[in-house]
Amino acid sequence: MTRDRYCEVRQATEQLCAPLATEDYGVQSMADASPTKWHLAHTTWFFETFVLKPREGYRPFHPLFEMLFNSYYNSIGEPFPRPQRGLLTRPTVEDVYRYRRVVDEEIENLIEHKALSSDSLAVVELGVHHEQQHQELILTDLKHLLSCNPLRPAYRVLAAPPSSPVAPQQWCEIGGGVYEIGHAADGFAFDNETPRHRIYCEPFGLATRPVTHGEMQAFIDDDGYRRPELWLSEGWNSVCSQGWQAPLYWEKSGGEWWIFTLAGMRRLNPSEPLCHVSYFEADAYARWAGARLPREGEWEIAASQLEATGNFVESGWFHPRAASAAVASTAQQMFGDVWEWSESPYTAYPGFRPTAGALGEYNGKFMCNQFVLRGGSCATPSSHIRASYRNFFPAAARWQFSGIRLARDV
Amino acid sequence: MTRDRYCEVRQATEQLCAPLATEDYGVQSMADASPTKWHLAHTTWFFETFVLKPREGYRPFHPLFEMLFNSYYNSIGEPFPRPQRGLLTRPTVEDVYRYRRVVDEEIENLIEHKALSSDSLAVVELGVHHEQQHQELILTDLKHLLSCNPLRPAYRVLAAPPSSPVAPQQWCEIGGGVYEIGHAADGFAFDNETPRHRIYCEPFGLATRPVTHGEMQAFIDDDGYRRPELWLSEGWNSVCSQGWQAPLYWEKSGGEWWIFTLAGMRRLNPSEPLCHVSYFEADAYARWAGARLPREGEWEIAASQLEATGNFVESGWFHPRAASAAVASTAQQMFGDVWEWSESPYTAYPGFRPTAGALGEYNGKFMCNQFVLRGGSCATPSSHIRASYRNFFPAAARWQFSGIRLARDV
Amino acid sequence: MTRDRYCEVRQATEQLCAPLATEDYGVQSMADASPTKWHLAHTTWFFETFVLKPREGYRPFHPLFEMLFNSYYNSIGEPFPRPQRGLLTRPTVEDVYRYRRVVDEEIENLIEHKALSSDSLAVVELGVHHEQQHQELILTDLKHLLSCNPLRPAYRVLAAPPSSPVAPQQWCEIGGGVYEIGHAADGFAFDNETPRHRIYCEPFGLATRPVTHGEMQAFIDDDGYRRPELWLSEGWNSVCSQGWQAPLYWEKSGGEWWIFTLAGMRRLNPSEPLCHVSYFEADAYARWAGARLPREGEWEIAASQLEATGNFVESGWFHPRAASAAVASTAQQMFGDVWEWSESPYTAYPGFRPTAGALGEYNGKFMCNQFVLRGGSCATPSSHIRASYRNFFPAAARWQFSGIRLARDV
Amino acid sequence: MTRDRYCEVRQATEQLCAPLATEDYGVQSMADASPTKWHLAHTTWFFETFVLKPREGYRPFHPLFEMLFNSYYNSIGEPFPRPQRGLLTRPTVEDVYRYRRVVDEEIENLIEHKALSSDSLAVVELGVHHEQQHQELILTDLKHLLSCNPLRPAYRVLAAPPSSPVAPQQWCEIGGGVYEIGHAADGFAFDNETPRHRIYCEPFGLATRPVTHGEMQAFIDDDGYRRPELWLSEGWNSVCSQGWQAPLYWEKSGGEWWIFTLAGMRRLNPSEPLCHVSYFEADAYARWAGARLPREGEWEIAASQLEATGNFVESGWFHPRAASAAVASTAQQMFGDVWEWSESPYTAYPGFRPTAGALGEYNGKFMCNQFVLRGGSCATPSSHIRASYRNFFPAAARWQFSGIRLARDV
Repeated sequence: MTRDRYCEVRQATEQLCAPLATEDYGVQSMADASPTKWHLAHTTWFFETFVLKPREGYRPFHPLFEMLFNSYYNSIGEPFPRPQRGLLTRPTVEDVYRYRRVVDEEIENLIEHKALSSDSLAVVELGVHHEQQHQELILTDLKHLLSCNPLRPAYRVLAAPPSSPVAPQQWCEIGGGVYEIGHAADGFAFDNETPRHRIYCEPFGLATRPVTHGEMQAFIDDDGYRRPELWLSEGWNSVCSQGWQAPLYWEKSGGEWWIFTLAGMRRLNPSEPLCHVSYFEADAYARWAGARLPREGEWEIAASQLEATGNFVESGWFHPRAASAAVASTAQQMFGDVWEWSESPYTAYPGFRPTAGALGEYNGKFMCNQFVLRGGSCATPSSHIRASYRNFFPAAARWQFSGIRLARDV
Repeated sequence: MTRDRYCEVRQATEQLCAPLATEDYGVQSMADASPTKWHLAHTTWFFETFVLKPREGYRPFHPLFEMLFNSYYNSIGEPFPRPQRGLLTRPTVEDVYRYRRVVDEEIENLIEHKALSSDSLAVVELGVHHEQQHQELILTDLKHLLSCNPLRPAYRVLAAPPSSPVAPQQWCEIGGGVYEIGHAADGFAFDNETPRHRIYCEPFGLATRPVTHGEMQAFIDDDGYRRPELWLSEGWNSVCSQGWQAPLYWEKSGGEWWIFTLAGMRRLNPSEPLCHVSYFEADAYARWAGARLPREGEWEIAASQLEATGNFVESGWFHPRAASAAVASTAQQMFGDVWEWSESPYTAYPGFRPTAGALGEYNGKFMCNQFVLRGGSCATPSSHIRASYRNFFPAAARWQFSGIRLARDV
Repeated sequence: MTRDRYCEVRQATEQLCAPLATEDYGVQSMADASPTKWHLAHTTWFFETFVLKPREGYRPFHPLFEMLFNSYYNSIGEPFPRPQRGLLTRPTVEDVYRYRRVVDEEIENLIEHKALSSDSLAVVELGVHHEQQHQELILTDLKHLLSCNPLRPAYRVLAAPPSSPVAPQQWCEIGGGVYEIGHAADGFAFDNETPRHRIYCEPFGLATRPVTHGEMQAFIDDDGYRRPELWLSEGWNSVCSQGWQAPLYWEKSGGEWWIFTLAGMRRLNPSEPLCHVSYFEADAYARWAGARLPREGEWEIAASQLEATGNFVESGWFHPRAASAAVASTAQQMFGDVWEWSESPYTAYPGFRPTAGALGEYNGKFMCNQFVLRGGSCATPSSHIRASYRNFFPAAARWQFSGIRLARDV
Repeated sequence: MTRDRYCEVRQATEQLCAPLATEDYGVQSMADASPTKWHLAHTTWFFETFVLKPREGYRPFHPLFEMLFNSYYNSIGEPFPRPQRGLLTRPTVEDVYRYRRVVDEEIENLIEHKALSSDSLAVVELGVHHEQQHQELILTDLKHLLSCNPLRPAYRVLAAPPSSPVAPQQWCEIGGGVYEIGHAADGFAFDNETPRHRIYCEPFGLATRPVTHGEMQAFIDDDGYRRPELWLSEGWNSVCSQGWQAPLYWEKSGGEWWIFTLAGMRRLNPSEPLCHVSYFEADAYARWAGARLPREGEWEIAASQLEATGNFVESGWFHPRAASAAVASTAQQMFGDVWEWSESPYTAYPGFRPTAGALGEYNGKFMCNQFVLRGGSCATPSSHIRASYRNFFPAAARWQFSGIRLARDV
């Protein structure tokens, strides 16, 4: 972990905020989302709490920030209630940037002067990856917030990513046997990617590309949202109680589908990868298509052989891009564009041990009633993703850039 | 209605906003409250909708503002959902001030050039009084918002109002008979104050001053919040489900009571008039004190003989002031300081006719499950109040400057 | 209070239960309603608690019944939670009848042997009137319960009451002035009917008969349930959130309206008095009809001059009966058939003092957010009603036999 | 599937109901539970719907039963809402028994006369196993219902199972490698137990016996219910929002723990296997004990080598029994006594295909947000259980006889 790397990531967060009005920073559109200002402060709190505070003589920036910007670390103390994060009009945006400055200066100094133990350096590295997770959340939470406004304001003026009609989906076949998955020794990984371990895997087919808008339209046109037999029982409850008739951010206007994007409303492009679907919708779509979602081990086996390149946040499109029109026999777009729902509940790998101390609350305690997504999205920083990376969300969540890649038994 | 009067009231609203950070304008702390920005826009919407739009050739400032800033006028169209007002990060504060400028210019011009019919002028006058109501709400909604923040930020640095120990409460006695109440012909009044009509009233006593903090402390110390026999059934449900143990904004710290004010936390002053109690608390306190709340007719009979002077928003204290220490045999502080809960449900006066058209939705449709408060508060503009004025809130509401004046049968 | 009177009322309760299957006794269809078994036990508990327990040497029937069958008397102890009354499968129906037997024997003995003080005799009389209130509730709660069953089972096989087309509604005019209302000295009354006191009343007109099914159909056909301008704001919220499109128990089948009655489904008879409407519907209907609801004082002034005869529970129809076809110039059906919503919130009369002790919780603590109904219904025992009788329910309640009589200013 | 087997299982259901009062049959204590009467009718509905109705000329017992007693088969039609099952006071208990008689006669006849195709016979067999599942639910739903009654009535007078102090728990060690799990070809199994497939399994240790009451007491005494670090995040939310301080049915009285059983209240016996814990409590206990829950594959590997004997419903204890005091080196009580929470979310086995048609809704659509339990309980019929059997409940469910067997990595 170098000073440069630290600065680069911290600055990237702030660059994402450049298009915002002060008014956009503080509002929380639902309990699952947080205000941008809170993300800015919380990521800073992470470094202050886990790197600076344990150091003798450190005087906290503000005595109440420990509580206000604690997300869920009960070992640190009782956090400020999540659904009320949007009520904190103070500290102001300027105050929060000042908080960032002060903490950054300390951390940069410590790195520069090699004053950090290797354990502390590892926490800084964790904090940098943590910051990257919140970069993605800033974008998805903002997208949700802006979508609640009948003015449908754009986060930023943006050109649509280039697009041409996609080739039909094909299947890559992968043989069965005992495989190893999970993070191997070198490079950073979260605790939930470890330990590397063996699994037995039957032969399977994996789709060459994600499901597109156009394919989802066919599902809708075939009454997909009105046929309970296609849905998990709990999914059907969501359809009925939430009144789902299409993916999140789809709106019908003048007989045509439009979608809300970070650039405002756009006419739906059938070639683009579908996103903003829940696990329930992904599962129902797969059942309708005569296929299934990949298990996370299958996905990782396939992805391990590929390079982690793609349409990430750095592309500046903030939107998934249509697959290459060239017919492919290998899997395209495994990384970037859209997170891909796996069929797998988020559980501990055999032999999993959470990090010791408060940081053990980072991942392990959420291993219940969530599903694994893989591969990153157009809102993910490219240096953040890898084949073993496990993202996770509840089955009804739709506000992430979450899409579908099909699998099948062979 | 003169141009000067219009300008003065419109500017007064903006002066109340002077101490705010941009961040403070947009947040909604509960469904009952609105963001300051929304108040600024809605009061402008009122003039645009009811004065400007009916004029041929008027081009609305923004096509969606009709919906966004409609409070509850179903005749105008479906309003934006009240609990989501805080999600509108756009228009920005600056945009809203621009909206105010544009509408003000139009209205001022029309007044100046005598281009308004007498009906339209009457609507402008209504709009001015409407604006004053929202001035008070800006303050009470902000107070609630700031109180939700563990930092307990002050709206403004403010000295406490002067105070000396109060004299014991006494009773003014008023004879029974047929009286007239309601607005008499001259001067502005809301439709709900009309028609003036006769009521029969038994003789009664009215307290010389409002109940104080110190008296409320005695109620608390006597287990008032733990004795169901003192409470209405629905009030006791509120006590239990909301966990009420003291009035809103009271906090115990180090064995002492503190209160949150628009100037931040202050040690409780026992001489100050109690405020931020619900009807339920007012009723329970009165029962405990062996008295009752006044009926609104009784209050008006007593108030009609007094001048409407007092501690209003113009005093700049934004807080009720202790009663004069001199023993009084007439009622003090009937106007200003704290709204006084009457025992009376808010109903139509005999012969009541709501204003014709959409403006008929202003008052009449709320005549259900609310209670009348009288006399104005330290957050009320002095030119807004009169003896016949009927304010109304649900029995559990506590975030207004609402207090208690006792009455009794004689 | 004679032994015969006591026995007669207690037996009447049990006769109402004669048509029930054991299964019907125990179920609670909503928090507002109670199981028949609970009514049978609670009315017995009333006599045991307030007459027998204060007597030295009395040994309670069961130590836990004090809690299980306490409705809302906090002075007696914490009652079993109301919404869970339906969970008590034990005591069985037989056990509860045994409880009734034991308590009845004691009370009857005490009356017979003149062993009760006049105070205790007054409580027995109160208990008898209390029992009659629960007789009506047994019927309305059962009606609601049976209506929830798609089999729409009848409480009892019953002929429809005789009916012929009604004459058009006319207005009885009553002059203004100071009147006295409230219970005069002789005969039983609840504390909430006292004290008798003066009111000032403007001249008014009162409809000669209640609104009919046919008139309500005209309201529905005129989109009455879809026009917010006809409704109180809170009423409109109920319409939208509850999806109201017609009164309770109305069902459209094959293009025609049917209603659920205690005799099962019947084709709607346009001549019958409308019932099962909320205050909100009554108020909206009146507004649509260019009239208003009567204030409770007006109703009582008119009713005081009439005899309290009509279609009560003893008629055995359990359903309102069409008004006489003869054109009437005086008010018909003021008593019996349907409770008539007044415009008046339920409040204390000037000088009201609740009964001392626990029985003071009977009425006074509910004087908040309820509206007064007058005149009794087809489910009311005839000896229970009088001109000064004040029934009260929340504005959204629809499961009582509640209807509409219009009034107007003159 | 013989006629005798069919009759035996159908009669076993009714024998379980023998101790009930009519009042006990109809009430529903929570949305997750159903009234006994509903279980009796629904299991009958199953045979009527899936065996009799497809036969030409069959005339349904009652036209509305198709809807009333449909649990969740959307392919059959919209079921009556689950949380309202307790509102159906009709059909009466007697009617439901008549329904059972009529359907039984038909089915028995068809079996006897070999009039059923092998497909239909397979559905009868499924229906018999389905009936056994509901036998267990009748007991657990009744236990919950009776526990809601402050009288704490017993289902039946019952002696406590024999008990002596248990030996300390030990670990059975099982080696790693590729194993096969899932149902092998012969004998009945539900679709969710198939297909038999390979898994890779690391070596592990499995506890010789389930966790006991006494061990759970140590967890409580060590503040287990007050230490968030022991809990999954969602589990800790349940602890806080539900106020959990001990397993379901534990009550402290006079400083001692008592538990509610089907025989009423009993003093807690520290040697008995713990039951009525949620997945969250099982997981927290395991973490506190330095162990973990077994994965379902591990459990099945261990169980496959054992005989499926134990304390089932036929023992007549309706309560788990203390483990043998003799020190054991192999796993005791794998079957019967208490269901054992596995760490595994309930998912489809690789290659899983739900049964075709409406019966495909039996299991597959619930594969989301539930956890697998293994081994059966003291309320399970012995002929119902096997090593491959997968029961499943949401993580917060506590009203089944669900307990804990620990596992650990080796």
